[in-house]
Amino acid sequence: MSAEPPSPHRSPAASHTGTERRSTALHTDRYELTMLQAALADGTAQRHCVFEVFTRRLPPGRRYGVVAGTGRLLEALSTFRFGDAELAYLSREGVVDRATLEYLADYRFHGTISGYAEGECFFPGSPVLSVEGTFAEAVLLETLVLSILNHDSAVASAASRMTGAAIGRPCLEMGSRRTHEESAVAAARATAVAGFAGTSNLEAGRRYGLRTIGTAAHAFTLLHDDERSAFAAQVRALGPGTTLLVDTYDVAQGVRNAVEAAGTDLGAVRLDSGDLPFLAQEVRHQLDALGATGTRIVVSSDLDEHAIAALAAAPVDSYGVGTSVVTGSGAPTCGMVYKLVAREGPDGTLQPVAKASATKKSLGGRKQAARRLDESGRAIEEVVVGGPDHAVTGWTPDTADLRPLHVPLVNDGAVDTRWTGAPGVALAAQTHERSRAELPPGATRLSAGDPAVPTVQTTLTD
Amino acid sequence: MSAEPPSPHRSPAASHTGTERRSTALHTDRYELTMLQAALADGTAQRHCVFEVFTRRLPPGRRYGVVAGTGRLLEALSTFRFGDAELAYLSREGVVDRATLEYLADYRFHGTISGYAEGECFFPGSPVLSVEGTFAEAVLLETLVLSILNHDSAVASAASRMTGAAIGRPCLEMGSRRTHEESAVAAARATAVAGFAGTSNLEAGRRYGLRTIGTAAHAFTLLHDDERSAFAAQVRALGPGTTLLVDTYDVAQGVRNAVEAAGTDLGAVRLDSGDLPFLAQEVRHQLDALGATGTRIVVSSDLDEHAIAALAAAPVDSYGVGTSVVTGSGAPTCGMVYKLVAREGPDGTLQPVAKASATKKSLGGRKQAARRLDESGRAIEEVVVGGPDHAVTGWTPDTADLRPLHVPLVNDGAVDTRWTGAPGVALAAQTHERSRAELPPGATRLSAGDPAVPTVQTTLTD
Repeated sequence: MSAEPPSPHRSPAASHTGTERRSTALHTDRYELTMLQAALADGTAQRHCVFEVFTRRLPPGRRYGVVAGTGRLLEALSTFRFGDAELAYLSREGVVDRATLEYLADYRFHGTISGYAEGECFFPGSPVLSVEGTFAEAVLLETLVLSILNHDSAVASAASRMTGAAIGRPCLEMGSRRTHEESAVAAARATAVAGFAGTSNLEAGRRYGLRTIGTAAHAFTLLHDDERSAFAAQVRALGPGTTLLVDTYDVAQGVRNAVEAAGTDLGAVRLDSGDLPFLAQEVRHQLDALGATGTRIVVSSDLDEHAIAALAAAPVDSYGVGTSVVTGSGAPTCGMVYKLVAREGPDGTLQPVAKASATKKSLGGRKQAARRLDESGRAIEEVVVGGPDHAVTGWTPDTADLRPLHVPLVNDGAVDTRWTGAPGVALAAQTHERSRAELPPGATRLSAGDPAVPTVQTTLTD
Repeated sequence: MSAEPPSPHRSPAASHTGTERRSTALHTDRYELTMLQAALADGTAQRHCVFEVFTRRLPPGRRYGVVAGTGRLLEALSTFRFGDAELAYLSREGVVDRATLEYLADYRFHGTISGYAEGECFFPGSPVLSVEGTFAEAVLLETLVLSILNHDSAVASAASRMTGAAIGRPCLEMGSRRTHEESAVAAARATAVAGFAGTSNLEAGRRYGLRTIGTAAHAFTLLHDDERSAFAAQVRALGPGTTLLVDTYDVAQGVRNAVEAAGTDLGAVRLDSGDLPFLAQEVRHQLDALGATGTRIVVSSDLDEHAIAALAAAPVDSYGVGTSVVTGSGAPTCGMVYKLVAREGPDGTLQPVAKASATKKSLGGRKQAARRLDESGRAIEEVVVGGPDHAVTGWTPDTADLRPLHVPLVNDGAVDTRWTGAPGVALAAQTHERSRAELPPGATRLSAGDPAVPTVQTTLTD
């Protein structure tokens, strides 16, 4: 592949990213705005509130989840602005009244957000995000917060099972075509958080500095008069280090043609169909016999974590994963909710609140969280810390076996930029690697089981 | 709700939509561009090609699928441009060489696209889209075409089962928070294609002219000192026609409080938890006893098509559907593929091509399709028409029982704008209503079954 500069007349300004920043403000359920209108009218909109994001359960059989999307959320916050066009729409449709439009015109989130670092593992009841501010400023973010965290965490949670099953072999994300075009970008990012080594998605490469990868499609072979001329063309254009797709016609002949075209320096061959464990074995023998001992084998074809695990003993060098990872491998969303857990009362003090429901139980009040580790540094409990608000706010672990989980993300409206952009993704990937390594030995088993550690509540006293 | 104009100094120009048009060109797998480079170098990039989109199977047990996303695809085509920023990224990363960058800089799709009208039902093997042009111009669209059609069709296919199960009662889409923020907009649009009556998503309302709807969240009640003051505030702000959420504390007391706050003109109450068939019955009796005989009952709480069907006999007026519809109710993607089926050979004639595979069988050559109807106008077969290229190109049904399915979408690069924007969604919804009504009686049953009609191949002769 050549890395020539673009022709000079097209050379862009360095600051131009090509991703114009659209307002994210209307990625919002209508009722957030109508509730705001009612609360502005009766004065409760100014009450100080704490909203909390958590999930009541993991998908059936899953042992842990992975927080992802935090960086994207912080990026989206900066474009959560009601501009002329947004206000005109809301006015034209009669969604809210003039007083509310005026509030929205000046809307900036001036509150505070803390939560689990992106990449951190979570469990049922983990308070993964805490959003604090007036009711008005915090309620408006509900839909956007949940959309981002539910999607990205679902993908990262599935992806982590795959990188776990791959025991060190690279997993490559190739699922863009099986999900919405913008979800595809976010999904590629989420798989990177969970340890994927590359993505086919160019926009994800551009936006988040991810490594992009690619082989070739059957269409490229079919375009040519025969497989040999297709392979020759690809090697001429991309060099012998390229990956040739050898299963368009006959795999054994495809491998012969591939080595003939690229020589024994051929980078890799890809298998995209058939009985992969068997085929990989055959192809490895054939490549070795042809002298292409360094040529790698990439497999794809509807792989999920179970198929990856089943290939552990096969001579496979990397896994191309599509549909299953971008759709959360059976769990396309996380079921995270955004609940009001405390709000200022008429006396000006913060009071815990919770819906009274037999089936949807929520614990009121602000919470913190910590992971309790045993002497070897393995996680044994998810500790959720509640109690009087000032006690929870000021809480820090008093014993070395508790690793606190909340980190500051937004302080009085100012975003902590460590979590955003390409550096944010890299930081999240490190966080995930450490967090997963800390889980007890059975945590990465694929068979259905209980959460890897139990969630326990602890209540501080005054 | 008030519909006052925005304050004058914010009045936007009428032409400003607030949705700046970002380039969609990098929503593309890297290998499309590297294949292009190799094909440009050996001249095959200029070969005339026909790519076809189809799915090999429906999700397990499903009886039909619904084509959706066509309008979005045509809209995305117009921004599929490699601008300075895109070219700079590709150059900087060494994705392709200078000749390819130059080709991309001038890229416009000048080809022709035909396919099933948006909203049309489809079956395994239905050739839902046909993209024709040079290899270069058609191969670049693969990822974008599939992302859009796979996502939107998955949602519309699930949504159609729900509107079918609701037998005339309105279904309302409220799932934005359970899917990626941009998927949420596309999902709202896809549910409208399948007959949903409204969406909570404001951005979808703005972009596609959809009716937006909303009630209130538990947080609004919890924000207030008690339920009565919350309801009073909502009614003051939004009028008695609003929908009050009555299950934050005790449903029976909630209903009493609601009618007390709004009077017997109360628009609706919403139930979001508990045993809905039983609760709806109780609440209906209570509302009637209080004189609120016109007050409607909206139910939500993890509804899917089966839960909707189970509520058929309950006194429910509309269904709020979230997670299950935006995630395709167990089938979050459609499995549609984009396959090269014919390409110009060295002699300049179009030749059918297909991958030789036991497991992934594709029929080579350009295809058309028609639905065969019985005397009462009910569909009995999906007829896929293949054969010599000129015969298929010129084919029109010669009997009245065949309804042709392909419509022109793009002609020599010119988009047929009937399918785009808000009018496109309305047209698609009409198309779907007609297409579903034409299916045989068992087609909308929710139980697992075979495709509602068999797909048969017919081969024309010279």
